[in-house]
Amino acid sequence: MKKFVADAPAPDENAKRRFMSLALEQARLCLESGDVPVGAAVVRRGEIVAVGRNTREKDLNALCHAETEAIRAACEKLKGWRLWECDLYVTLEPCAMCAGAIVNARIKRVFFGAKDPKAGAFGGKFDINSLGLAHRPEVEGGLMEKEASGLLEDFFAALRGRTEK
Amino acid sequence: MKKFVADAPAPDENAKRRFMSLALEQARLCLESGDVPVGAAVVRRGEIVAVGRNTREKDLNALCHAETEAIRAACEKLKGWRLWECDLYVTLEPCAMCAGAIVNARIKRVFFGAKDPKAGAFGGKFDINSLGLAHRPEVEGGLMEKEASGLLEDFFAALRGRTEK
Repeated sequence: MKKFVADAPAPDENAKRRFMSLALEQARLCLESGDVPVGAAVVRRGEIVAVGRNTREKDLNALCHAETEAIRAACEKLKGWRLWECDLYVTLEPCAMCAGAIVNARIKRVFFGAKDPKAGAFGGKFDINSLGLAHRPEVEGGLMEKEASGLLEDFFAALRGRTEK
Repeated sequence: MKKFVADAPAPDENAKRRFMSLALEQARLCLESGDVPVGAAVVRRGEIVAVGRNTREKDLNALCHAETEAIRAACEKLKGWRLWECDLYVTLEPCAMCAGAIVNARIKRVFFGAKDPKAGAFGGKFDINSLGLAHRPEVEGGLMEKEASGLLEDFFAALRGRTEK
């Protein structure tokens, strides 16, 4: 029987770190526009399909999170809205919108760095995978968490410093 | 004390029906591209800011739901990502992604037509307002439900008809 969902091989530890490093690189680019540093990458069978970063302030758009930008670019590149064979790497746990986008795009696996107890939708604030929706991605949190959290902490510390001056 | 969230006056029944009719008009346009007919409109203080419709198949993009298209256009038009004074009208109950986008954009009120027991995020499948996120829009479901559901039922009946031939 032909399987409906293609079997994209799971990445090994080296590959995971390589792709998350790419997402971290994207996150650092956010600092140029004063955006909260969050980056993402979409990967298909070991090949990078698309990257994205948070540009909410730069683009003045509530929808421009790292994940949505990367998913949008991946759909464009692969000319289809079903990203069944794709994994998403993102430096911060996805919010409700992005987790919903991941479900809608049928992303196979999600790897995230820092946890988000205020808005995270994969266990931080709630778990979208427990809601009985039509698709449930595999999820691994805490990948290169220290690097991802460090970027965010430095950003917010600098922001507080500027505000207090 | 200055209120953080602007007091945008609530629409009356006539206004609600007028704006939902506009969303229904958008939904009908989906039929041209074979997309599931869902339409949306963003309204600020009685003025239409932006409209949107589902173009997932047309644009081959998992993110192109009616609500995200309307919110994106509204952010562009108002040059800001905080739509505090805006209401969203949509013919079908928003999914997790779109409800998350509504939260992220700080939309004040949501009016939807047909309920979605499979994926609806305002009570249909789950209630995003019960998750303790940073923003909770006011929600009214079932507005012009018959018209909105009728469009969807006709669409899926035609689709089944084509498949069975």
